[in-house]
Amino acid sequence: MTVIYHRVALIGLGLIASSMAHAMRAKGLAAEIVGHAKSAETRATALEIGICDRVYTTAAEAVQGADLVVLAVPIGAMAAISAEIGPHLAAGCTVTDVGSVKQAVVEAVAPHIPDGVHFIPGHPMAGTEYSGPRAGFATLFVNKWWLLTPAAGVDPAAIIKLQSLLEGMEAKVNTMDPAHHDQVVAVVSHAPHLIAYTMVGVADHLAQVANSEVIEYSASGFRDFTRIASSDPTMWRDVFLTNKEAVLDILGRFAEELFVLQRAIRMGDGDYLFDYFTRTRGIRRGIIEAGQDTSAPDFGRAPAAVKPEVEA
Amino acid sequence: MTVIYHRVALIGLGLIASSMAHAMRAKGLAAEIVGHAKSAETRATALEIGICDRVYTTAAEAVQGADLVVLAVPIGAMAAISAEIGPHLAAGCTVTDVGSVKQAVVEAVAPHIPDGVHFIPGHPMAGTEYSGPRAGFATLFVNKWWLLTPAAGVDPAAIIKLQSLLEGMEAKVNTMDPAHHDQVVAVVSHAPHLIAYTMVGVADHLAQVANSEVIEYSASGFRDFTRIASSDPTMWRDVFLTNKEAVLDILGRFAEELFVLQRAIRMGDGDYLFDYFTRTRGIRRGIIEAGQDTSAPDFGRAPAAVKPEVEA
Repeated sequence: MTVIYHRVALIGLGLIASSMAHAMRAKGLAAEIVGHAKSAETRATALEIGICDRVYTTAAEAVQGADLVVLAVPIGAMAAISAEIGPHLAAGCTVTDVGSVKQAVVEAVAPHIPDGVHFIPGHPMAGTEYSGPRAGFATLFVNKWWLLTPAAGVDPAAIIKLQSLLEGMEAKVNTMDPAHHDQVVAVVSHAPHLIAYTMVGVADHLAQVANSEVIEYSASGFRDFTRIASSDPTMWRDVFLTNKEAVLDILGRFAEELFVLQRAIRMGDGDYLFDYFTRTRGIRRGIIEAGQDTSAPDFGRAPAAVKPEVEA
Repeated sequence: MTVIYHRVALIGLGLIASSMAHAMRAKGLAAEIVGHAKSAETRATALEIGICDRVYTTAAEAVQGADLVVLAVPIGAMAAISAEIGPHLAAGCTVTDVGSVKQAVVEAVAPHIPDGVHFIPGHPMAGTEYSGPRAGFATLFVNKWWLLTPAAGVDPAAIIKLQSLLEGMEAKVNTMDPAHHDQVVAVVSHAPHLIAYTMVGVADHLAQVANSEVIEYSASGFRDFTRIASSDPTMWRDVFLTNKEAVLDILGRFAEELFVLQRAIRMGDGDYLFDYFTRTRGIRRGIIEAGQDTSAPDFGRAPAAVKPEVEA
């Protein structure tokens, strides 16, 4: 048990903050964890499940005396909360965030960080389709990437200290430029989410296929999309609004590519389709070899529970 | 142990046929299982792993004396194989198939089925991203749908007998019209697969983001697409070529919908995105309540293995 920070202030108490609290407690990484959430119910839950030692009704109170402040609110709320806490940050403390977009967070937060406080933007590439403090668990970050995008000139000692905390939670840490980060996540996360939302939306308002059938027969591909498309709406709204350029670029490429494949289907070009599908199969192999997913068939998921009634 | 068929002939020995053999053996549903595959290596594997009691170099030999013949070859191979076996089918036997498209299979197979043989097209909505005889396992069909699309006038006793076999493998059986089947699977399976292939293809030839990064950071959504996009290329080529109209219809709707969401991002219409994402979240709940997927976060998948080396 090596205490790395004496007081960690979690601003926002959703899935990520709650998982951090569980992980820090499990590994003894923080002497004290305090928190703030806008909702009284969320604050009460945080105390009840023990992820915070104390909660505060304002973020300004919560950050006082903290040597690590974690901004874990939707990206759209980052600017206002930073303006609020800025004057209350302790000298020498570190401020990080867990937003999925980094340029927009830097623009929203950096102007409010006083001299003598270290701002190290961060992005844990981990999550589930659930949200809220009760969704958190201590192993969420195990073997997951946690990307940091510190500006040039940030104190290396502060970065190393934060990295120790993240590695203490068993995350893998890498640093990169915020703009490059936003391009990478547009490909690996943001565009796939938008596409999954779109496909689920199409299925939702198809009149010719009753909704119940779409759900009943979803096991053959569609259900994977619905998991992604059930992620937190507020978080994802803000992601798309704040990583607009990179996401629109990838979606444009996606639409072009889709049209090429659609055309191959329409023209009956089987060779083109076969070659394409063979190439994409190779990428899956790369992901498994890189340790980024399980090789178990169907993710190793358990068969869904048998329904009590027999369907018509 | 209730033997339902005395000799089952599996034509094609991939994931589905192999899983059927394992399941039939586990439950004692077939007295004898024989098989045919085009490749000598596959036939040898089938004997080695014990899914067939005997294998034959031709389908015509394999079907002789069988009371159930299962066509488990890619859809594009159905017509030729049916023409070959037609004259060798035993009177009173049942022919079924496991193709993911039903109208095209009916057109390819039905003309070759002699009088006195029962043709009952079928589609097990089960599978994994792996293929080949070694990929099969006995529980693949547990609690999964197996749709049958028999023509009007097919002997109800033959349908009931086949249904007993499928339910004996713990599948859930339903019947529907072939055209309706093809529309439903275009939504729940074919379009999602094409979209996943497309997204993985886009990531593959993005020059600005190194491939290694796409793979390294794939855990945040993209990797789910790569699992779907690593399915058998031959099978999926044939699916898209033979369910062309229904798939193109859904892809057209998808493209329209994508453009609406793209436009909302471009215009910064956060309310539209939020409402959309809230609706799609509800569909996931329906799927879990219908017993079609696990409610475990992230499919309950195990963390991927830790890589031996540390990445740069």
